[in-house]
Amino acid sequence: MASKTPGKTDNRLVVLHGRGKSSGIGAVWLVGAGPGDPDLLTVKGLKVLKKADVVVHDGLVSEAILALAPVSARRISVAKRKSRHSYAQSEINRMLVAFAKQGLTVVRLKGGDPFVFGRGGEELEACRGAGVPCHVVPGLTAALAAGASAGAPLTHRGAAQAVTFVTGHAAAGGEPDLDWVSLARPNQTVVIYMGVSTAAAIAERLIAAGRARSTPALIVENASLPTERRIATTLAGLSKAVANVSGPAVLLVGETMAVAAEAAPPASWPFSASGAAQ
Amino acid sequence: MASKTPGKTDNRLVVLHGRGKSSGIGAVWLVGAGPGDPDLLTVKGLKVLKKADVVVHDGLVSEAILALAPVSARRISVAKRKSRHSYAQSEINRMLVAFAKQGLTVVRLKGGDPFVFGRGGEELEACRGAGVPCHVVPGLTAALAAGASAGAPLTHRGAAQAVTFVTGHAAAGGEPDLDWVSLARPNQTVVIYMGVSTAAAIAERLIAAGRARSTPALIVENASLPTERRIATTLAGLSKAVANVSGPAVLLVGETMAVAAEAAPPASWPFSASGAAQ
Repeated sequence: MASKTPGKTDNRLVVLHGRGKSSGIGAVWLVGAGPGDPDLLTVKGLKVLKKADVVVHDGLVSEAILALAPVSARRISVAKRKSRHSYAQSEINRMLVAFAKQGLTVVRLKGGDPFVFGRGGEELEACRGAGVPCHVVPGLTAALAAGASAGAPLTHRGAAQAVTFVTGHAAAGGEPDLDWVSLARPNQTVVIYMGVSTAAAIAERLIAAGRARSTPALIVENASLPTERRIATTLAGLSKAVANVSGPAVLLVGETMAVAAEAAPPASWPFSASGAAQ
Repeated sequence: MASKTPGKTDNRLVVLHGRGKSSGIGAVWLVGAGPGDPDLLTVKGLKVLKKADVVVHDGLVSEAILALAPVSARRISVAKRKSRHSYAQSEINRMLVAFAKQGLTVVRLKGGDPFVFGRGGEELEACRGAGVPCHVVPGLTAALAAGASAGAPLTHRGAAQAVTFVTGHAAAGGEPDLDWVSLARPNQTVVIYMGVSTAAAIAERLIAAGRARSTPALIVENASLPTERRIATTLAGLSKAVANVSGPAVLLVGETMAVAAEAAPPASWPFSASGAAQ
């Protein structure tokens, strides 16, 4: 079930000749695909996906999820992994609008949630500007899946009164800087997305800002997928611990990560071995 | 479909006589029910719910979602709404463990995500302490649903580089205080859960800490339900704007809330009018 993705193509043409369904305008659905496990799609996300004429998806959306779209649907990868952007954001925006104007039901499928580091806001703006209807279906952002897998709560009485999501890009100096003093305060969980390559700098800045070196930290790679890997460490050990991480990962820093389970999750009864939806 | 909840009862007895399925131990599943719309359950959450022998649920979990459990499953409400706690947390913990020890599949169904202000960590600890297997199925936390409904991204290039979830309780002085100076910084989104009754104090403290009075703010009541209501305002207008909010709500403060749509969402094609799962 996982590897069949009919209609997938690298063709960059925006126009799908002969695919316009009517003279009316279509719509764009920004759908959060969740962390990777097809069973962590929402029921609504799955229903929308099954109605897609075109699926425009990120590189991180798994084949198993793409396989849930109709066989006839065109799949277009706009993979935006680090250092191999195959499409600029402006090109993606134009593509979504153009497809919808052909009367198509366009599903823009994004890993996690469209509005948490997903640039969904930019796509929504483009649709609004072009008069194209755009709907948003939220998805499970990776932090939630990572905490659930590890059995480590993001908030917890007396140990984490708040949770903050940031990206590792900020530590690289390319974006407005973060408030490190605030992020270094105890009694909270900080989740860093896209932070593998900047983990050393992040840990250094948090420690410099006063966070204890012994603060528990957790790395969750490929959250919710069969290849999920969890590494429990400390803030001081973070940079060494990410050395072998190659897949997408979130870094979680905070007192509650002390209870994170490193072991593989128990067999996922009552599910089938494949874990696939349907 | 929505109102049928067979097996629902106020009976506080922990032992379900004659319901033990085997001499083996059962398991506790902490399942995030999401924001309210049954279609915003995950596929996995739905599958687990359908296997439940007992469903122990919060007051905020809708009848439409409870109806997705087997007819034979016992429903037990442990409603924990403000000032009418019907069960102490320790009682809930004991109940979950006792059911599982009878060999039952226990679904602890919580609004939103179990690990974001859901006290799931305490229940997981209780299970671990008692040697009862406990699995966590993440759910859509209300902030994600609120942003999606309103078309207002939680993060956005140049306008919100981070997002933080806090509770309104902290503003009431009952818990460790929050870092208001940090929460008042621009270029981020702050989502306040359970903040309706403390909205005035929250706004006052954020303004005192330097956040502009004109900062866009959004109130989303009953996110994702047919009764959802969105009120767009500013930080200065927040306390007046919450005056008529009676249902559960999240408050979102940040630059990106300027693009929040107050109007009702468009008709939710391709779904049925009821919006119910299945």
